[in-house]
Amino acid sequence: MSINSLIEDIIKESKIHIRNGNVATYIPELGKIDKNILGISITDIQGNIYNAGNTDVKFSLQSISKPIVLLLALMENGEEIFNKVGMEPTGDPFNSMLRLETFDTGKPLNPMINAGAITVASTIKGANLMEKINKILYLVRLLSNNDTIKINDKVFQSELRTGHRNRAIAYFLKDNGIIEGNVDDALALYFKQCSIEVTTKDLANIALVLANDGVDIKSNRRLIPSNYANLVKSLMLTCGMYDHSGEFASTVGFPAKSGVSGGILGVAPRKLGIGVIGPALDVKGNSIAGIKMLEKLSDVLDLNIFK
Amino acid sequence: MSINSLIEDIIKESKIHIRNGNVATYIPELGKIDKNILGISITDIQGNIYNAGNTDVKFSLQSISKPIVLLLALMENGEEIFNKVGMEPTGDPFNSMLRLETFDTGKPLNPMINAGAITVASTIKGANLMEKINKILYLVRLLSNNDTIKINDKVFQSELRTGHRNRAIAYFLKDNGIIEGNVDDALALYFKQCSIEVTTKDLANIALVLANDGVDIKSNRRLIPSNYANLVKSLMLTCGMYDHSGEFASTVGFPAKSGVSGGILGVAPRKLGIGVIGPALDVKGNSIAGIKMLEKLSDVLDLNIFK
Amino acid sequence: MSINSLIEDIIKESKIHIRNGNVATYIPELGKIDKNILGISITDIQGNIYNAGNTDVKFSLQSISKPIVLLLALMENGEEIFNKVGMEPTGDPFNSMLRLETFDTGKPLNPMINAGAITVASTIKGANLMEKINKILYLVRLLSNNDTIKINDKVFQSELRTGHRNRAIAYFLKDNGIIEGNVDDALALYFKQCSIEVTTKDLANIALVLANDGVDIKSNRRLIPSNYANLVKSLMLTCGMYDHSGEFASTVGFPAKSGVSGGILGVAPRKLGIGVIGPALDVKGNSIAGIKMLEKLSDVLDLNIFK
Amino acid sequence: MSINSLIEDIIKESKIHIRNGNVATYIPELGKIDKNILGISITDIQGNIYNAGNTDVKFSLQSISKPIVLLLALMENGEEIFNKVGMEPTGDPFNSMLRLETFDTGKPLNPMINAGAITVASTIKGANLMEKINKILYLVRLLSNNDTIKINDKVFQSELRTGHRNRAIAYFLKDNGIIEGNVDDALALYFKQCSIEVTTKDLANIALVLANDGVDIKSNRRLIPSNYANLVKSLMLTCGMYDHSGEFASTVGFPAKSGVSGGILGVAPRKLGIGVIGPALDVKGNSIAGIKMLEKLSDVLDLNIFK
Repeated sequence: MSINSLIEDIIKESKIHIRNGNVATYIPELGKIDKNILGISITDIQGNIYNAGNTDVKFSLQSISKPIVLLLALMENGEEIFNKVGMEPTGDPFNSMLRLETFDTGKPLNPMINAGAITVASTIKGANLMEKINKILYLVRLLSNNDTIKINDKVFQSELRTGHRNRAIAYFLKDNGIIEGNVDDALALYFKQCSIEVTTKDLANIALVLANDGVDIKSNRRLIPSNYANLVKSLMLTCGMYDHSGEFASTVGFPAKSGVSGGILGVAPRKLGIGVIGPALDVKGNSIAGIKMLEKLSDVLDLNIFK
Repeated sequence: MSINSLIEDIIKESKIHIRNGNVATYIPELGKIDKNILGISITDIQGNIYNAGNTDVKFSLQSISKPIVLLLALMENGEEIFNKVGMEPTGDPFNSMLRLETFDTGKPLNPMINAGAITVASTIKGANLMEKINKILYLVRLLSNNDTIKINDKVFQSELRTGHRNRAIAYFLKDNGIIEGNVDDALALYFKQCSIEVTTKDLANIALVLANDGVDIKSNRRLIPSNYANLVKSLMLTCGMYDHSGEFASTVGFPAKSGVSGGILGVAPRKLGIGVIGPALDVKGNSIAGIKMLEKLSDVLDLNIFK
Repeated sequence: MSINSLIEDIIKESKIHIRNGNVATYIPELGKIDKNILGISITDIQGNIYNAGNTDVKFSLQSISKPIVLLLALMENGEEIFNKVGMEPTGDPFNSMLRLETFDTGKPLNPMINAGAITVASTIKGANLMEKINKILYLVRLLSNNDTIKINDKVFQSELRTGHRNRAIAYFLKDNGIIEGNVDDALALYFKQCSIEVTTKDLANIALVLANDGVDIKSNRRLIPSNYANLVKSLMLTCGMYDHSGEFASTVGFPAKSGVSGGILGVAPRKLGIGVIGPALDVKGNSIAGIKMLEKLSDVLDLNIFK
Repeated sequence: MSINSLIEDIIKESKIHIRNGNVATYIPELGKIDKNILGISITDIQGNIYNAGNTDVKFSLQSISKPIVLLLALMENGEEIFNKVGMEPTGDPFNSMLRLETFDTGKPLNPMINAGAITVASTIKGANLMEKINKILYLVRLLSNNDTIKINDKVFQSELRTGHRNRAIAYFLKDNGIIEGNVDDALALYFKQCSIEVTTKDLANIALVLANDGVDIKSNRRLIPSNYANLVKSLMLTCGMYDHSGEFASTVGFPAKSGVSGGILGVAPRKLGIGVIGPALDVKGNSIAGIKMLEKLSDVLDLNIFK
């Protein structure tokens, strides 16, 4: 069976799960998306791209921005970022503050939880917010090979208005000396990176660079140092799917990062880049049909890295 | 460079780290081992075995028994074990009780923490303790291809006498309805499985079966169903090295499980099985020189599964 | 209005609340009591005793034994008991383990939570369990002026069979070095002290000694040193009513200690001793009608010590 | 011995403890006070006032403002404030966030911890910050019978600049729906109430109103309803001295509230009002010499309400 017909079938089969999920509403602007949207794009090492379903719908990166901004921070400052944020997975929900405090260091456990990602954002260098967000945008455009990508200002404004919990986390980090600069600036940058709008095609392109050890398959140019690509993929595997990460590693078996917009970026090393959209979420905040699609895909195309 | 000379070099280079580690003393019998011991055995898919350092020293499995007994539980009862224990990693130290209670379910987060492993042990079927431990011993002998493996009774007695924290965990699990049978029996079985004595050669053989998708390379006989092998390898990667698991996944990048005796079982899928001993532990309870050896090995032999 | 008719009225008025409560069932033997039982006994400094409702029903002390055994421990060893257990109240439910671990010391927060009371029991001196429980019984009989008080063996056996959570707590305390001797012995003594059977009259007599600064009103003999009596009364006020203690102090305003059998011992310093039984409990484990009776009593007789 | 010579002696004896304490530095402006200051004022029901030591030194109320603003909230809105904040004590340090989250409700445990006090401040009604703080100032002036009391703007600015942890707490409360209005406004009011400047004489006067059931002894005018006075005194006893509250209740035995400026307001019901200043704090944040003075005073003047 061709990949095209495979993913068409997977889309069809997986739609049934949408009814059991719900669109995220805690950021009001996210609540407006159609929960029936479902799409998948796949890129391979040979340069092919395969699309099925709603692959032209735009959605915000949300937490999918976390591994990308981590890559930028690593390229800017090297591994010293890990003086401020750990690498350890956690079974906690994505927005927990509990763990911050029970650990003596006050260091967020990893860069994939909000506390860790806000910390990472706070280390991005730049004269002002504009300069910093432009660096992030530049990297997203470079990795996705899409210069038209931009920020959805309505989503940004919506996050800015309602992000009280992230604000609480950020002030807690400030109090612990983890955030060194201005808290409002760090939060604004974090909300901006979450509001970058992409399609599944963009995600598949970004994922392909990671799948290909950090090297662009067309130009053969290295965009990301190999060790940083590995590090980010390992963090995606251990912490990328909120408190479903362990189960996802067991059943799907490749690095992925989800966002509450319903997007998932998946990486099958040396094989495929994958982008998924499906705004209906399960209770843990992952695209409910999206996960089903990735389970099936891993199974049929033998993508489990543990096998 | 041949693998033999590579691992001889690695042993030499890594000895320097021993001074920064300490032998575990909370189980008195473990405190008697020589902290300068260091050994590594490697098996490959082609049937070769390579040894360097103290590869004939016997040591108890301790937490390395956890993935093995989980395999037995899966083969006995299938995935219904996950009704009683989760799959999610945790940044907690190995013997924490805190997380048990903060989660509504009372379910241990995963089978690699003590609470999870005691739960798994409590589900092993058998008329009595002897029958149950014999099943475990049979599986260890089968996977290691070594019929002489047995339990170190001194270690077992030492654990039995001093395992107050595990006893606390077990009664907590009983109170929550997670352990259904007798608590003392579950603990005795758990202490027995921890007291099984092996060498690095045994570990490398066991690891090779996992590396080869559950199939014995000599007989070509399937010893473990493929999906259970994958599942256990993914749990080793996300939770196998205590609260260093995330960092180990980032820097070494393959599934491994350590024990407080200083052993580490490492699996490079489709490539190698690895057994390590080095009783000097770091603050997180992992062999301090053992981890250095695996970092080097992964780097030189390109074993990172995320690459 | 006379006290007799006042408490008759209070019994009548308060019965309506019984329907909103439930008998404790986690100790099976406790589940057999009639939830409609309601009784109150009051003793005063002048030597009068007033009874209304079911004041001859026998019930086990349960947590009401905690302040009494603390008095014994203080009289045996002085305030060094507070090297092993704190004096700080907690908003936690009565059987929480969480707080044990989040505090660095491993010391239970106070002697009114189970962890603290088991610790206190473990310090009682004696050649064997019999000698220790006899000391406790002797003190209960002395304070209540009732030599017929004894242990309900069915309740004791029931606690022994089902007390898994207390067993977990005790092994945790052993692991932390808080319990020095044998865990099973400490638990047996604790379960025995909880199983001592009394009536509301006994409670009112015990309470009167505390109300009278530790001095028996009839013989004028000092049974408890004044400072220990004060200390125990202050701990009853801050921690005596589980996680309703703060609200009880605000609305009733005198020291009291409840048990899951439905008993409450109340002390109005320099005024009254009070004993209550009402096995229908609220969600926090206190007698639902009993609390209403004490609120009314405090109001009418002006017993609030803060006023 | 007269009260005057008693408190002169107590001041002399207690100075020795100052060396073991330290001035609070987390609010930079507080760090500038002389740690050797020590003073005590006592008012009695007969209208006498006794002073010893530095009773004219001005210091900011800090947490001593908490019971006063709670009284205002109660007089404005009645007990419905307890829909937003609990009454239960906690053994946690004063600025903990942990407990906020482990309780399902998201409600702060009591009005004496920062989270609870910020919540109480957020409910004070008024057209703007000025109107609200004027209400608080009016009540402080009324209770202390001192119209010259005002806010120390340097302290206020210092708190505003450095109060990241309180800001974190406030946004967390906002996220949980506990704070309904603007977070910055609630924080500004809270920081203002903490910055109100008083002397020990003012504290003794305020305390005397509480000691006298809410009635001004000179005018015989009721300033606070009796039940609100009782309620606040019981909360001071169970939660007023941070995580030393339980021990303070056991050793001193009357309601008190301390602040990190080194002030303590103490209430001996029907007897005395007490004001203390001693900026050298113990590790729990209470005036180290101040506590010693109150222990002695309680002992000599028989002020323990449990006796």
